[in-house]
Amino acid sequence: MSRFGDATSVERLAEGRYRAELDEGFGFAQALNGGYLMAVLGRAAVEASAHAHPVSTSAAFLRVAKPGPAEIVVEHRKSGRTADMFRATLVQDGKSIVDAQITTATLDPAAEPVWAGDRPAPALPPVASCSILDEPPKNTTPRIAAPDDEFGDRGDRGFADRVDMRFDPSTMGWLDGRPSGRLEGRAWFRLRCGYEPDAYSLALAVDALPPVALNVDAKGWSPTVELTWHLRAVPAPGWLAVLGTGRLSAGGWFDEDVEIWDSAGRLVAQSRQLARTGRA
Amino acid sequence: MSRFGDATSVERLAEGRYRAELDEGFGFAQALNGGYLMAVLGRAAVEASAHAHPVSTSAAFLRVAKPGPAEIVVEHRKSGRTADMFRATLVQDGKSIVDAQITTATLDPAAEPVWAGDRPAPALPPVASCSILDEPPKNTTPRIAAPDDEFGDRGDRGFADRVDMRFDPSTMGWLDGRPSGRLEGRAWFRLRCGYEPDAYSLALAVDALPPVALNVDAKGWSPTVELTWHLRAVPAPGWLAVLGTGRLSAGGWFDEDVEIWDSAGRLVAQSRQLARTGRA
Repeated sequence: MSRFGDATSVERLAEGRYRAELDEGFGFAQALNGGYLMAVLGRAAVEASAHAHPVSTSAAFLRVAKPGPAEIVVEHRKSGRTADMFRATLVQDGKSIVDAQITTATLDPAAEPVWAGDRPAPALPPVASCSILDEPPKNTTPRIAAPDDEFGDRGDRGFADRVDMRFDPSTMGWLDGRPSGRLEGRAWFRLRCGYEPDAYSLALAVDALPPVALNVDAKGWSPTVELTWHLRAVPAPGWLAVLGTGRLSAGGWFDEDVEIWDSAGRLVAQSRQLARTGRA
Repeated sequence: MSRFGDATSVERLAEGRYRAELDEGFGFAQALNGGYLMAVLGRAAVEASAHAHPVSTSAAFLRVAKPGPAEIVVEHRKSGRTADMFRATLVQDGKSIVDAQITTATLDPAAEPVWAGDRPAPALPPVASCSILDEPPKNTTPRIAAPDDEFGDRGDRGFADRVDMRFDPSTMGWLDGRPSGRLEGRAWFRLRCGYEPDAYSLALAVDALPPVALNVDAKGWSPTVELTWHLRAVPAPGWLAVLGTGRLSAGGWFDEDVEIWDSAGRLVAQSRQLARTGRA
């Protein structure tokens, strides 16, 4: 097992009850990443399902999850011809942490797009021209560092040692007081442990960018209220391009849309989250 | 009360339990519109909340709702400084019809956008240049009819008599075998009963377009699996511009994104749904 595989594995306790051990490496400080929690919820739903993929996941983030044991309660809601539908809740210390509605189905890895949009995928500079972030964005003194091409575990300092992200420098101006003024963020993404892209690492990737509102008016962290993501294709091995935009920041709320494209040039995931604008 | 106000009203039965009478006018044949059901769910959540607006709603469509009595079960999940979070389920005849996760908050009607995108709102021809659809899209022989400027109830033949939609003809080519080849659909929207735009009519509007995949490869109806929509501003009175696009149709699934702009030129709602491509 890889580190990400271990960190998202679930053990069946009983009908509709699963146990997970949440890994502190997939968070910043003591707050675990919402995408990581969606990956764990997705695994539990697929375990409970006759289908192979979590094609649609809506998550409501109620409370902050902490590293350590958690229980996932999965309630079967409907089985149709092509999909199963579930409610799933991540519980810690008797408290509900994340509520989710998950639809599972089995996607055909060979399915070709019938239509794939008239907007091209936004360009992302080559991996070698992108930057790594040497501290998690929550830290008050993050900095851009030279790319590190070493593939493998870099130690145990947190998210940036689990997840290898290479940021498009044009979207990272917020780091030194030059935000671009647009809701945007773009990065290459892969897991340092060598775990190749699948539905669970995509769940992590759709919530892995620093909040796009850091380029407009957010300061510090921006808590996600709701995030829905859809798996659109089975991803190919290799780097993932994570492309974040947003449509509106107003009244202390903003949306963040993420598209993920795989190394075969296909749209494999799309998400939208509604978040509160960070004021810290 | 207006017809739409009546049709979405909920009566409190007990803590977390509400009753509604579902109006056959807000559906096609015997299948009620998903947006109408979200409006009813949103009213129940706001009734149960200290806040005024359903800012985020994720709905999983389990079964087809029928006209007549329904119960809404609302479970309070969390109250924070600025928002309350709920699970809500629409139940008929002891069966769960729609599961929803709803976040309520109170938006400031005077809030000005901090940033409102670098893509302009897609253009929609003037109301007078748009067409009405004289039969519901599910009907096998829908047709474009001359605009009808009469404001008020036209009778009792169904959805088109409750909802006055003026379709952009360039997105309606699927009606006569000339689909545009793109996931798209655009229309002006208002309620014939004179009910002015609010969060509940927006819930209806985000699911009111004929499926955008009719312009690509869908035939007949395309069942929505999941729809998440966010209220982004309190809408002004008048016509709403409903602008539908999509990013990908593949493997029998497509996404439909809807933005709604009000008569004051503001983005007031955004939604995305994942649906099965109709094959009927």
